[in-house]
Amino acid sequence: MIPVILSGGSGSRLWPLSRKQFPKQFLALTGQHSLFQQTLQRLAVEGMQKPLIVCNESHRFIVQEQLAVSQLEVDGLIMEPFGRNTAPAVAISAMKLLAEGRDELMLVLPADHVIKDQRAFQRVLAMATVAAESGEMVLFGVPATAPETGYGYIRCDLQDRSSLPEGINRVLQFVEKPDLQRARSFVESGDYFWNSGMFLFRASRFLEELKKHDPDIYDTCLLALERSQVDGDNLLIDADTFACCPDNSIDYAVMEKTAQACVVPFAAGWSDVGCWASLWEVNDKDENHNVLKGDVVMHDSHNCMVHANNDKLVTVLGMDNIVVVETKDALMIAPKDRVQEVKTLVNTLNEQGRQETQSHCEVFRPWGSYDSVDMGGRFQVKHITVKPGAQLSLQMHHHRAEHWIVVSGTAEVTCNDKTFLLTENQSTYIPITAVHRLANPGKIPLEIIEVQSGSYLGEDDIERLEDVYGRTKEQEQQPDKLRLAG
Amino acid sequence: MIPVILSGGSGSRLWPLSRKQFPKQFLALTGQHSLFQQTLQRLAVEGMQKPLIVCNESHRFIVQEQLAVSQLEVDGLIMEPFGRNTAPAVAISAMKLLAEGRDELMLVLPADHVIKDQRAFQRVLAMATVAAESGEMVLFGVPATAPETGYGYIRCDLQDRSSLPEGINRVLQFVEKPDLQRARSFVESGDYFWNSGMFLFRASRFLEELKKHDPDIYDTCLLALERSQVDGDNLLIDADTFACCPDNSIDYAVMEKTAQACVVPFAAGWSDVGCWASLWEVNDKDENHNVLKGDVVMHDSHNCMVHANNDKLVTVLGMDNIVVVETKDALMIAPKDRVQEVKTLVNTLNEQGRQETQSHCEVFRPWGSYDSVDMGGRFQVKHITVKPGAQLSLQMHHHRAEHWIVVSGTAEVTCNDKTFLLTENQSTYIPITAVHRLANPGKIPLEIIEVQSGSYLGEDDIERLEDVYGRTKEQEQQPDKLRLAG
Repeated sequence: MIPVILSGGSGSRLWPLSRKQFPKQFLALTGQHSLFQQTLQRLAVEGMQKPLIVCNESHRFIVQEQLAVSQLEVDGLIMEPFGRNTAPAVAISAMKLLAEGRDELMLVLPADHVIKDQRAFQRVLAMATVAAESGEMVLFGVPATAPETGYGYIRCDLQDRSSLPEGINRVLQFVEKPDLQRARSFVESGDYFWNSGMFLFRASRFLEELKKHDPDIYDTCLLALERSQVDGDNLLIDADTFACCPDNSIDYAVMEKTAQACVVPFAAGWSDVGCWASLWEVNDKDENHNVLKGDVVMHDSHNCMVHANNDKLVTVLGMDNIVVVETKDALMIAPKDRVQEVKTLVNTLNEQGRQETQSHCEVFRPWGSYDSVDMGGRFQVKHITVKPGAQLSLQMHHHRAEHWIVVSGTAEVTCNDKTFLLTENQSTYIPITAVHRLANPGKIPLEIIEVQSGSYLGEDDIERLEDVYGRTKEQEQQPDKLRLAG
Repeated sequence: MIPVILSGGSGSRLWPLSRKQFPKQFLALTGQHSLFQQTLQRLAVEGMQKPLIVCNESHRFIVQEQLAVSQLEVDGLIMEPFGRNTAPAVAISAMKLLAEGRDELMLVLPADHVIKDQRAFQRVLAMATVAAESGEMVLFGVPATAPETGYGYIRCDLQDRSSLPEGINRVLQFVEKPDLQRARSFVESGDYFWNSGMFLFRASRFLEELKKHDPDIYDTCLLALERSQVDGDNLLIDADTFACCPDNSIDYAVMEKTAQACVVPFAAGWSDVGCWASLWEVNDKDENHNVLKGDVVMHDSHNCMVHANNDKLVTVLGMDNIVVVETKDALMIAPKDRVQEVKTLVNTLNEQGRQETQSHCEVFRPWGSYDSVDMGGRFQVKHITVKPGAQLSLQMHHHRAEHWIVVSGTAEVTCNDKTFLLTENQSTYIPITAVHRLANPGKIPLEIIEVQSGSYLGEDDIERLEDVYGRTKEQEQQPDKLRLAG
């Protein structure tokens, strides 16, 4: 069995923590590890092969970083230039497996869900495997125990036992996000499940059904894969072809239409942590039923979710059932029962061209990260962290000089024709247009304070001359082409 | 007439904007100028002499800075080592005036109130002057139009017209902060006024009544004044003596007890802006009745007060009647009708030894200000601004080295036996224990980024060798003594 991890979501309802450049699945929302890492860690099950990751191209370095930190091995990354929903993502994964002669069972898992009960997960997986091996298209359906209006529902025929193994149910109908009244009737009727977004089927079976029910996606994905670029184990989907691919979910494109969709009941403490209220649900609460993170002082306040940075004291006085989320550059306050509307708020902010929906102050790079800590008319101060053994590109700037002060660790600095070491409390100066490089030759993270001085301080004033991460202009123009058999 | 401005308050109900080291009266809450500056600007009235300022010693540089910026002249500062409420503050002011042979009318004004109608203020002042000149102790009473529970009330005898000028009323009773029911009955009865904390009387009349009704305060204040230290026009009250002075308000100590207290009705758009709700009241509102300051996006929210820093996007979704106050180091969220409890919250934080109730991130010094922008285990980054012509003390540190990078303006740097100039994009290094000084010899503010590096980075690792603001240990031990006639 090969897991296919769908990691392309944007999770805008968890803004301001979730950003376009660092979305929900990469956040540690329920513990030390990110949802993405937890999803992979959950797969330490016998017979499970290394997973295939489908992610956005722009999240590549985050994915690689999180895999490395948790020492997780994968089969490779399928990188999308932009999202086209789940059907094309699964299609290309299936096609890639077939092209490699691996027509195995594919376990499709969203990278941003919580599953609390690992043993139940494994039991359900075993049940699903039996069905999938007989050619069934298996959905994992969570018994609908509350009238949630934010979920997709699957109605099953609990009577029809004819062709399915014990406990597995034939699908009758899909209902996307019902209103409260309908949702209540669904829960009462007892034959509805929440659609967890998890699936199990054989690669060839999925493609067979896709070709039949949505040949347009099938054909476009086949072409997109053929034109994709290979980079080691990874694959970058051809943007021009993929742009022509219809945007559709696996539910609409295939599962609603096939006669062989079935549901395995999935009661394993599942949550899609799709909004701040569901995050409040899954987290441990204090004696006032508050979920608190950060430097928070609550005063006569109950049932709140406060998720704060550690750099500010957050006080809440006399409030019940609210959500407060504070990051370095944005704050969001809402009643807990209206957090679905955060998505609308994010859309509004996007229309206003606000940067706060796109990325965090702390920006992650393959070599480490940086954070803008102060800015003025003609200067900017950055706190830069370089991982042990890592190095930035050999680069130069046309409009700014840089002062570097090492505050922790050891730096290897290249400036024009000189290369030298700097340690804590030492500094150097990089004049405008000097060709320079910063590297960490040591065993602990290197931290420097960089004071930029100049008339233009934009991130785009950078000319990369050499880069170990393939980020120079030349390198970006010469990747290998994938040649697919067939 | 001599105004006496009482500027010793702490305004803890306006936390986190108001801090012990930078309280309410010095904040620009209703416009470009601080409440303190507005109070002084209001006094541009014929026959008004230069005001006497009573403030806390620790606010001296803020007072002087705000006076200088607004080009306001004063008679001098009476600096209290700590607060002892209003009676001692007014007593020492009156005694100082008498000692100088100036037995004039004293107009006592809190520094932290709003008066919107300047013409009405002047009209009422004229009325009050007539009464005070005939020996009356005049209170300014705001007609109670709403059942406010946070105010002090004055009950008047509206029938007794015997000895008072037209429109002025004899005081019957003082009531401090009644409950809602009582407050309602006061408003209905029509013979209650809110106590504005403003007074007018002759200096000798006040002292006469104080000596009679609270001789303890009288005697202690006389002694405290005699032992005070003179510094130019300013006076620093002797701490040891003042510590023995009873803590009492002018209302309790004198106005409740004298037979000659009267109220002049004061309808001039007065507000004590004593809490966030009253600040919402006095400010202009948008179409959703929100009062917004900072980078704020409101989404279906009404009747809110959001006061934010400009360094963060603040979003409020679906909330009504809440107050959100955000500063660089603290955030406070509360329902608008519970903001009186902010005082309790501040007390709790004080008990926990939290720094956030004491001072802001941006710290004001006589020479300018500094702001901590980044901090780590063994380093700190500060953004320092030095006023044109100003200089820091000649100093040294035992535990930290400093890297200075000029990002705007010109610096004159002294480091051991060398003195040199640095301009934008130049830097220097101050080793541990080097004797150094930073000065701004230019005409525009000097801005530097300081990166401190060392094992201990506390503000108290400073040895001041010379200081133009009298802040060296030696200078603080040798001020002049005031010799009072009598």
